[in-house]
Amino acid sequence: MSDVIQDRLAAKGITLPVAAAPAANYVPYVISGNLLFLSGQLPMENGKIGVTGLAGTEVELSEAQRAAELCAINILAQAKAALDGDLSRIVRVVKLNGFIASGPGFVEQHLVMNGCSNLIAEILGDAGKHARAAVGMASLPMNATVEVDAVIEIA
Amino acid sequence: MSDVIQDRLAAKGITLPVAAAPAANYVPYVISGNLLFLSGQLPMENGKIGVTGLAGTEVELSEAQRAAELCAINILAQAKAALDGDLSRIVRVVKLNGFIASGPGFVEQHLVMNGCSNLIAEILGDAGKHARAAVGMASLPMNATVEVDAVIEIA
Amino acid sequence: MSDVIQDRLAAKGITLPVAAAPAANYVPYVISGNLLFLSGQLPMENGKIGVTGLAGTEVELSEAQRAAELCAINILAQAKAALDGDLSRIVRVVKLNGFIASGPGFVEQHLVMNGCSNLIAEILGDAGKHARAAVGMASLPMNATVEVDAVIEIA
Repeated sequence: MSDVIQDRLAAKGITLPVAAAPAANYVPYVISGNLLFLSGQLPMENGKIGVTGLAGTEVELSEAQRAAELCAINILAQAKAALDGDLSRIVRVVKLNGFIASGPGFVEQHLVMNGCSNLIAEILGDAGKHARAAVGMASLPMNATVEVDAVIEIA
Repeated sequence: MSDVIQDRLAAKGITLPVAAAPAANYVPYVISGNLLFLSGQLPMENGKIGVTGLAGTEVELSEAQRAAELCAINILAQAKAALDGDLSRIVRVVKLNGFIASGPGFVEQHLVMNGCSNLIAEILGDAGKHARAAVGMASLPMNATVEVDAVIEIA
Repeated sequence: MSDVIQDRLAAKGITLPVAAAPAANYVPYVISGNLLFLSGQLPMENGKIGVTGLAGTEVELSEAQRAAELCAINILAQAKAALDGDLSRIVRVVKLNGFIASGPGFVEQHLVMNGCSNLIAEILGDAGKHARAAVGMASLPMNATVEVDAVIEIA
């Protein structure tokens, strides 16, 4: 991995986890041409879902944002695995889709997703500035508060 | 912009708004190769969300369809900004994802999304005939009724 | 279609339906370069939605999984139509997005989506191993329990 990306991770006290292995007849990522498609990442932390419940009613905004940050860390970990350990091969994060489990009346999905967007941009610099969607879900697998998938242009 | 597209917009009385600027560490669009990825567009109208609330319970079908039309107009505005003002560089609208904030029991997301699909096809002609998904959300940012993102092939 | 894919379909007793025609100003698929984008597929069975209602409260897990299988069959049918009848032109199923209509508290969208993932991988082999997202929706068009869209690399 390039020193600058590693330095930014270290400055934020982030150690990328070992990327989770495929759990079924699907895989964590597929590369097609120069596009890397990542499966939806849950807010895994120390091997389990770090933040569960519906944003707004069961989970406060700041904690939901932390869930989105955890998704970002897992996205970087999966991208690192896909790119033979070298995140500097990321040319551009093209698109992130942020799915936020939302209690009735919660309409700040964009603020939750900023937790992910900010971290990706801080770590990757201009290559991390992405298009995105942020939407409110009825619920997510294993009661996760946030799930984020990604399309990334790679070299 | 090509005259034919401008003429179709004029015939429908549509003036494309100035594309909204990026609001955070994400951007309205990213171009990768010949694919333009647009961020999720809300039904912005005169600088604010034009239609809010859950389709079916708080918002009637016809008004939800109008929200989807507003999303289409914002998609065209962002595409125009991405393409240096020239919508004729759109080779094909490849995929639209329509996220419809839905009250309990509302199952006509496809009819809502037709408001977007019809306008895109009317303005862009064959280049506007797209694949799509239409799905029902618990809620959307800033209580918007509809959010639509896009993948567009460009020249 | 290659004999091996046809044999696998036959071994599972699956006859691909005639792909549904476009219903509006959108189309079932768009090909851009070597990527095939499929519209969201509902669990159509004998010309109507085969499984309706919210997973967890109105629909049991096993029946929701069957809905996801039906979506997989419709994905294969649409891909076959897009590829002039030859599913062996599928190089790789790149990404599946599984949208699961979910009752309150249902958090097993990943298990539902396995119904789709497993069938795609069984029929297509390694070419069927895909990245995916699985998320819980408030509701879906025509009260369908599952909707799945796809990005597929083709030759």
